[in-house]
Amino acid sequence: MSFPAETEGFQVDEPGNPPDFHKRSFKLKPVGDHDVDIKIDACGVCGSDVHTVTGGWGQQKFPLCVGHEIVGHAVRVGPKVTLIKEGQRVGVGAQVYSCGECKQCREDNETYCQVNLINTYGSEWPGTGIISQGGFASHIRTHEWWVFPIPDALPTKTVAPMLCAGITVYSPLVRHGAGKGKKVGIVGIGGIGHFGIMFAKALGAEVWAISRSRAKEAEARKLGADGFIATAEEGWEKPHRCTFDLIVNCANSSAGFDLAKYLSLMDVHGRWMSVGMPEEEGTVIKAQNLVSNGVLIGASHLGSRREMLDMLKLAADHGLEGVVEELKLGEEGLKEAMVRMKKGDVRYRFTITGYDKVFG
Amino acid sequence: MSFPAETEGFQVDEPGNPPDFHKRSFKLKPVGDHDVDIKIDACGVCGSDVHTVTGGWGQQKFPLCVGHEIVGHAVRVGPKVTLIKEGQRVGVGAQVYSCGECKQCREDNETYCQVNLINTYGSEWPGTGIISQGGFASHIRTHEWWVFPIPDALPTKTVAPMLCAGITVYSPLVRHGAGKGKKVGIVGIGGIGHFGIMFAKALGAEVWAISRSRAKEAEARKLGADGFIATAEEGWEKPHRCTFDLIVNCANSSAGFDLAKYLSLMDVHGRWMSVGMPEEEGTVIKAQNLVSNGVLIGASHLGSRREMLDMLKLAADHGLEGVVEELKLGEEGLKEAMVRMKKGDVRYRFTITGYDKVFG
Repeated sequence: MSFPAETEGFQVDEPGNPPDFHKRSFKLKPVGDHDVDIKIDACGVCGSDVHTVTGGWGQQKFPLCVGHEIVGHAVRVGPKVTLIKEGQRVGVGAQVYSCGECKQCREDNETYCQVNLINTYGSEWPGTGIISQGGFASHIRTHEWWVFPIPDALPTKTVAPMLCAGITVYSPLVRHGAGKGKKVGIVGIGGIGHFGIMFAKALGAEVWAISRSRAKEAEARKLGADGFIATAEEGWEKPHRCTFDLIVNCANSSAGFDLAKYLSLMDVHGRWMSVGMPEEEGTVIKAQNLVSNGVLIGASHLGSRREMLDMLKLAADHGLEGVVEELKLGEEGLKEAMVRMKKGDVRYRFTITGYDKVFG
Repeated sequence: MSFPAETEGFQVDEPGNPPDFHKRSFKLKPVGDHDVDIKIDACGVCGSDVHTVTGGWGQQKFPLCVGHEIVGHAVRVGPKVTLIKEGQRVGVGAQVYSCGECKQCREDNETYCQVNLINTYGSEWPGTGIISQGGFASHIRTHEWWVFPIPDALPTKTVAPMLCAGITVYSPLVRHGAGKGKKVGIVGIGGIGHFGIMFAKALGAEVWAISRSRAKEAEARKLGADGFIATAEEGWEKPHRCTFDLIVNCANSSAGFDLAKYLSLMDVHGRWMSVGMPEEEGTVIKAQNLVSNGVLIGASHLGSRREMLDMLKLAADHGLEGVVEELKLGEEGLKEAMVRMKKGDVRYRFTITGYDKVFG
């Protein structure tokens, strides 16, 4: 079996608004015994991609091919691969490697590895000078641990965004107790939040969608929300004070956010978990804001392999699909995706398809 | 049995630096069937008292008698009292009433009651126009639930500060898992923090005292610290990155605090709990600061009756005593306590004694 050294994909040479994508060849990581080569069929567009190619997150390693909600087929597997079979439909998310040996890796916290964490794009494969490249490309190669079999019940196009947006909200939901008897809120009904509503409901919780206006109420209820809160309405917080066990804040902006009001929704030691990564300068928090209910504030980073497999099974068992708009792979399709994502003009996620047309 | 309507104590008429105390009579709450009257023997001086009488916390209801680390003897008990016996040595902390019926009260979270929470001083007893008054007084009267029998092994003078400073750090320690196999940090070795070191050690944790300089290292180790971190030393955080399960921040000021460095100490989903109430404007927190280890940030408010009794038993079983300096009750003693507390000139807590000399 021969493993190629390069693949073809769409790179951005520098951040821009709008950004320009260029089709070209670039290096894959040197092949390892545990590596899987994946021929890509589709890839979702994540807020991180937009932040990266439009410059909102500052310095990154360019030229860069972004995209980390990847679905494809395993076309070659290394001699020691046991988790993935050749030909299998698989997914890859926002990380592609960790040390596998530290305390964090051993305790199902591999996405928090402090030793050797490789992001799907923009990280150097140690000692090679090769920068990892994402999913708007023909192929990707990585360690089997970071490759996830996709259940047959889940269509490629709608499962793709689960690999990052989905796991980003699934992990804090399960880690912080979403389930029967718990009142769970999802702030921000977008790419991440719409999965939050579905998953929290499937896990058995009482789910409240929390949005600025009521524009998305009908859709939120269709996704599974038991209740809806519109924060533009006077006194919105009052009936819910001290009642939520968990709120996952999926909003992608913190502008104009009255955090103290949101925190007043939490029951004693309730968890306010942020998974959005706003570009703004952060929120001022005083210990006094946290005292009246002993609320815990946190953030969360993706989810473990075990959680990824559990999430895909939950989605398959409950027939859950991401709500996506399809755009075609290419300079124009990628640019349109980034521009429209930046404006919030998508319900609720783009999946880039049409790889066959570009790469044959 | 006759219950008096008034008691005598030392009130401040308005915030001042230094504040002036005036001895006079004021009303006790109307007696209830579950009330206990306590003749006070000693009372610790808490940071809250200083913030209140020097004006750092803004509007309060003056004239006011502060003090909420009260030890005395139950001299009269109402007809329905079952938790306290007449003559018993008892303590009262920073709260004296909650509704007792809401979800929070029923779940051992009565200090977080949102319905009817009465602080030991400065709250109105509902419908009476009477403002609750604290422990620099001859007597205090309140509901038996908020009166705690003191084990014989604990001297009055050294147990007094446990009623607020002690429970303030004990509750987050036990609620957030301090115990065998856990690495626990205590930031700020003062009135609250010195109890934190003792209690965390007694609970079985590996305890690290975290202070600016090494000035308090010997004392911290004597209190039970297994290790000591001086944050004025370059690179202090590096050897401890991602290793702490719990840190309780007992510092009373957030000035010059590089929170991101402290948070980098936490293991995945470690808890950073603040119990100090700085007068400053708060800390800017970005979700990005919380992501690399999924740390949870929170605060905590006192502790339940059950925790208060557990803490007193732990202290009695382990022979733990607050490290206190004694000052005598009176205009001068109280003023000196407030002025020196404000400067941090106390190791580690003042207890005001000599009540017999003043009130007979």
